[in-house]
Amino acid sequence: MKVLVINSGSSSLKYQLYDMTDESVLAKGLVERIGMDSSILTHKPADKEEVVEVSEILEHNTAIRKVIDKLTDKTHGVLASVDEINAVGHRVVHGGEFFNESALVDKEAKKNIRALIDLAPLHNPAAVMGIEASEVNMPGVPQVVVFDTAFHQTMPERSYLYAIPRVLYSKYKVRRYGFHGTSHYYVSLAAAEFLGKPIEDIKIITAHIGNGGSLTAIQGGVSVDTSMGMTPLEGLMMGTRSGDLDPAIVPYVMNKEELTVGEMNSMLNKHSGLLAISGISSDMRDITDGWEKGEPNAKLAFEMYEYRLRKYIGSYAAAMNGVDVLVFTAGVGENSAIVRKAVCDNLSYLGIEIDEELNKIRSGDARRISTPNSKVEVLVVPTNEELVIARDTYRIVEESQA
Amino acid sequence: MKVLVINSGSSSLKYQLYDMTDESVLAKGLVERIGMDSSILTHKPADKEEVVEVSEILEHNTAIRKVIDKLTDKTHGVLASVDEINAVGHRVVHGGEFFNESALVDKEAKKNIRALIDLAPLHNPAAVMGIEASEVNMPGVPQVVVFDTAFHQTMPERSYLYAIPRVLYSKYKVRRYGFHGTSHYYVSLAAAEFLGKPIEDIKIITAHIGNGGSLTAIQGGVSVDTSMGMTPLEGLMMGTRSGDLDPAIVPYVMNKEELTVGEMNSMLNKHSGLLAISGISSDMRDITDGWEKGEPNAKLAFEMYEYRLRKYIGSYAAAMNGVDVLVFTAGVGENSAIVRKAVCDNLSYLGIEIDEELNKIRSGDARRISTPNSKVEVLVVPTNEELVIARDTYRIVEESQA
Repeated sequence: MKVLVINSGSSSLKYQLYDMTDESVLAKGLVERIGMDSSILTHKPADKEEVVEVSEILEHNTAIRKVIDKLTDKTHGVLASVDEINAVGHRVVHGGEFFNESALVDKEAKKNIRALIDLAPLHNPAAVMGIEASEVNMPGVPQVVVFDTAFHQTMPERSYLYAIPRVLYSKYKVRRYGFHGTSHYYVSLAAAEFLGKPIEDIKIITAHIGNGGSLTAIQGGVSVDTSMGMTPLEGLMMGTRSGDLDPAIVPYVMNKEELTVGEMNSMLNKHSGLLAISGISSDMRDITDGWEKGEPNAKLAFEMYEYRLRKYIGSYAAAMNGVDVLVFTAGVGENSAIVRKAVCDNLSYLGIEIDEELNKIRSGDARRISTPNSKVEVLVVPTNEELVIARDTYRIVEESQA
Repeated sequence: MKVLVINSGSSSLKYQLYDMTDESVLAKGLVERIGMDSSILTHKPADKEEVVEVSEILEHNTAIRKVIDKLTDKTHGVLASVDEINAVGHRVVHGGEFFNESALVDKEAKKNIRALIDLAPLHNPAAVMGIEASEVNMPGVPQVVVFDTAFHQTMPERSYLYAIPRVLYSKYKVRRYGFHGTSHYYVSLAAAEFLGKPIEDIKIITAHIGNGGSLTAIQGGVSVDTSMGMTPLEGLMMGTRSGDLDPAIVPYVMNKEELTVGEMNSMLNKHSGLLAISGISSDMRDITDGWEKGEPNAKLAFEMYEYRLRKYIGSYAAAMNGVDVLVFTAGVGENSAIVRKAVCDNLSYLGIEIDEELNKIRSGDARRISTPNSKVEVLVVPTNEELVIARDTYRIVEESQA
């Protein structure tokens, strides 16, 4: 079975075509600047040169058609015909309480994804556009939706409820959902496999830290708590997101600066985090470079980032009354030896000890960075959300056709 | 020296008269419903019966005059004349960045307390009224201000800065201040004394949990982090305060419910926390009673309260890379054996082990509730903010007159 994995943003669309016989990626690519007259399609077949094409792509429908053109192109393609695509898997950010697992797309599923637009106004409309554009361009091909939130639906009430009037939950579904679920799921499973231990028997903390970032406490193989909340704003300090802050600051600043709801959300999501503190960049590589060059604000941004990440790890150790495995993943987690070292050096009270040489190794494979003496296994596990989407899509379509 | 300690609220005024030769309390009392025609003054001399008087007390000036009347009353009084009051110590909630310690009241101090009204609109105006009413009623008597925030001014930038645009700090002083400072200071010092260890050598977490609640990480004898923030809203789940939540919830709910800034603040500060989740009460005693009676919402409120408190303890253990002493204080911390047990039972990964019998003992003295095997000393230390105010007032007035 060949599965096309699609991740639709409001003005972008990423794709990967999987051959599920060996889980190989046949091609992948990206359409950027959808809605503009100079949209960019970057297409990379597995064994051929990358091609870049600039053209007018006004909506997702056209974007998907152009992607299919490339996938079936005589020169750059990897398929003889669009009919070879057996299923499409979509990443959807918000599944709310409707979806605790991936699901086949039908009328009901689309209705529910639309009903969540209120909670994910930037993300879910794009997912719907991607689904409908796929229906138009690949009629009859089964589609599956895979949610960032689904893995966290196992959280108990004490983790997902906020201590605010209950009516806000019953009326508007204000609660913690958590995000990056496919990543936390994938790396926790990969970590258990790497260690050769049943996932049910170990307490895992997964740190998905990229431009966005979230931490998950995984016990008995399921998510019991996660740092992102109703939206991806809560929790860790991120590239451009503030993470946690005194909620009273929000009305205070809105009042002082006469900001609208939209402007306040924009400040906290796009102009905060590493970017705001360093004044340099939202990218951890620039922050560590800046720090090395003696830039005090870069040093402070790094310290805040590390400190807040570390406190969350401590908090989740308390949540589970202990931790057996700590997993780093995503851009910063996989690549920043300096962040991992800074965090782990200050967690020696948990019996964490990392091997500095192992920590410095760069690799695309899951690996251990803790010493044999460490009481907690510390791993780096490259995440692969697309693969989870491809696998779920494959499984669900197979089951539906059985 | 006799010191009158005053804690002014917007419509209330608490007082205690100390004889500093032996730190004994000569009398204490409370004026409630200031501004109404049926204000209530409750006065309790140390060795005499309590008296309650209902009268019209329209402002703090009158309240202080009535307090002095009682203190010098032939029947209920403890002083021959108001001249015996050598100094007045005031509790002030917000000292901002102006005050990192208690201070003698002068023109500058009053100006700075007034300048902070913006950050503490409910509290600082009342403090100013208390100070000015004392000046009128006890002219020439030196006054000292003791701040809830001062102890936390030692926090490093990484703890007190939020990851939001820096201009919000430079322009509006948006940062973490922390509160309950006199209590965290007092119980940490008392804990070190109880253990016979220099406070500089131990890592302490103090849990001041009453109707409000905050946790402080104390290292080297100073506050390095605390859970309340710019305002007392952040951090733990409290009686009627939400504590931490996704900041994006604030504009979301304001928008949905068409709430003003004031209404939103009121919802989060007065209608949230234990009260909102239990639907019963903001008082932990009612919550545990309700739970025993099988009320599911009381059980949930307890679980959320305990869980969030425990996570903060774990977070501060990570902040200091370990913890030697955990101190419970204030209403819940001093009296709720069930809260202390629930928290500690789930912190065994830190080597915490409490003695259930010791935990059940009720006492007004500092006491250990951990077993000899426990790797962390767990103490209950009754707080005494008034005594700290009296001591600081005494010391500062003595120094100023030396």
